[in-house]
Amino acid sequence: MSGQITLSIDVMGGDHAPGAVLEGAALAASQYGDVRFLLHGTAEALARAAPALTKRAELRACEGVVSMDVKPSQALRQGKGTSMWNALVSVETGEAQAAVSAGNTGALMAMAKLRLRPMAGVHRPALAAGWPTMKGVCTVLDVGANVEADAEQLVEFAIMGEAFHRAVRSVARPKVGFLNIGSEDQKGHEEIREAARLFREANFDIDFHGFVEGDDIAKGIVDVVVTDGFTGNVALKTAEGTARMVGYFLKEALTSGPMAMAGAAIASPALKKLREKMDPGRVNGAVFLGLNGVAVKSHGGADAQSYCSAINVAVRMAKSHFRDEIEANLKRLAATESRLAAAGVPPT
Amino acid sequence: MSGQITLSIDVMGGDHAPGAVLEGAALAASQYGDVRFLLHGTAEALARAAPALTKRAELRACEGVVSMDVKPSQALRQGKGTSMWNALVSVETGEAQAAVSAGNTGALMAMAKLRLRPMAGVHRPALAAGWPTMKGVCTVLDVGANVEADAEQLVEFAIMGEAFHRAVRSVARPKVGFLNIGSEDQKGHEEIREAARLFREANFDIDFHGFVEGDDIAKGIVDVVVTDGFTGNVALKTAEGTARMVGYFLKEALTSGPMAMAGAAIASPALKKLREKMDPGRVNGAVFLGLNGVAVKSHGGADAQSYCSAINVAVRMAKSHFRDEIEANLKRLAATESRLAAAGVPPT
Repeated sequence: MSGQITLSIDVMGGDHAPGAVLEGAALAASQYGDVRFLLHGTAEALARAAPALTKRAELRACEGVVSMDVKPSQALRQGKGTSMWNALVSVETGEAQAAVSAGNTGALMAMAKLRLRPMAGVHRPALAAGWPTMKGVCTVLDVGANVEADAEQLVEFAIMGEAFHRAVRSVARPKVGFLNIGSEDQKGHEEIREAARLFREANFDIDFHGFVEGDDIAKGIVDVVVTDGFTGNVALKTAEGTARMVGYFLKEALTSGPMAMAGAAIASPALKKLREKMDPGRVNGAVFLGLNGVAVKSHGGADAQSYCSAINVAVRMAKSHFRDEIEANLKRLAATESRLAAAGVPPT
Repeated sequence: MSGQITLSIDVMGGDHAPGAVLEGAALAASQYGDVRFLLHGTAEALARAAPALTKRAELRACEGVVSMDVKPSQALRQGKGTSMWNALVSVETGEAQAAVSAGNTGALMAMAKLRLRPMAGVHRPALAAGWPTMKGVCTVLDVGANVEADAEQLVEFAIMGEAFHRAVRSVARPKVGFLNIGSEDQKGHEEIREAARLFREANFDIDFHGFVEGDDIAKGIVDVVVTDGFTGNVALKTAEGTARMVGYFLKEALTSGPMAMAGAAIASPALKKLREKMDPGRVNGAVFLGLNGVAVKSHGGADAQSYCSAINVAVRMAKSHFRDEIEANLKRLAATESRLAAAGVPPT
């Protein structure tokens, strides 16, 4: 069994669960010979798993399911024994190296924090998302785990995001930037300016770009975009909304008359490729970083192919040493803060 | 001269100044019979104005020009007597009802604040931008005048944005929402939750939607989106970056081979219309709201047509009573705060 990875799957989470989840897991099973699965779901749902999947999986029947509209606090109180809860417990106990769920984001974050606990040195875990750019895919964090972040937490996000991007996107030396409203040092609020200063002082072995602006994300100026959870969540949803709007306008334009429709028909293979490029499922798999274990969040609306992308992220994280790297940099950050405090440098 | 409007134009501001500015003003002159212009620029630039414009304008020669890369503080120290400065002074003295500039945004905001001063009851002026949506154009503010905003300031932004949208976009009863990371009452940070509470308490005669999320902007769920200047600036630039990226992918797809190119050629009138719909110049004209006078900021890269859109915004504002309406609602806000304080309701 050496080298083998075990993933824990919340079969019941997501708009198209359990069908899309089981099909997505079966797809992943056919791609990765060294991955096995713990499937957490109701007996009825588990009975729908294809033989090709079940021969590589262990079925773990459960009773409860976390609904998509339950509040995090409620999920914590009532969620014990649900498929989501049990999927996380499998990671907590070490049976699995990563859990994947397409269920309720708030509930998953709350449960993951409770069961997997933040890593030593991490004040706040952060939600990291893949974001399509002109150059490929970048990682943006935090996209909603915390509504605020101070300078130290922003630097922790940077450390976690950099290690994550290297592990999952196979970029040897990811470039990191803090999201701001200008590129000059004096721009933005105190937290972000202090974060940049702290990052430079710590002298990490990380390619640091400094500040980036909103339109730099799509340009792919950096690989990792660091921000607080409020700004990151607004930016991510704004980008999704804009992409959908342009798609809507394009469709409207190309169905506006016989000539437009003829042109669209002739160009349809190219337009299909465009749609795939814009498909959010292509970079599916947001990750809750900074815990003692991996929890991957798939889009709720993921189909089988898209769910398989989220599993792909979990596999890459499970196979990497990103947590050791994060630990090393967190130690350096703590040392820098002690040094600055000893030297009497006031935190802004 | 009754009913006539006078606009003060910074002829030297913008990437394509003075050419695009003078042509844009000439276009506006041909559209509005009741508008005259004060043209502030160097003698050399003013000499390039077309006769059709000069017969409706007064030429005001100046020496200095504010460069695009100067810092706001520097612009304040050295900007006296520049075309931008003089354009604002014309509004301050009452000679003109509104100023338009495509120059340095930071410098324009700093100078406008100094010369025109905030209205009584406004703690922080805000920059409001037009934003294309699936249903038309919405107004988003603040998009960068302030990096932070407390609850009271957010409510002031809402009041100003609503009056502005009614005046400029001809919507009788604009719907207003606060930008947040969820639509439930308990979502987001303290400032935004307190702002929503304060807004409801004040019982304005305004159609209040509550919270909106990033993807609701493009859907056109509300007419006025209220947020702090940091989040608004990031969201606006992120949307611009995303629209540009999709445009880039579309162009790439439609030039990827002979079939795609043939299809694109046949559909080209429809694609041209799409480009126009996505053109930021279509909704050109950001406005610095909350001052004792109107200052409109055109995109720096505006061409003549786009500059004319910014003038259009200035004309509509100059003709409206939006400042009286803002004053009435600001008084109601102040009364609400006094009432809450007297009743011992603690501000969060």
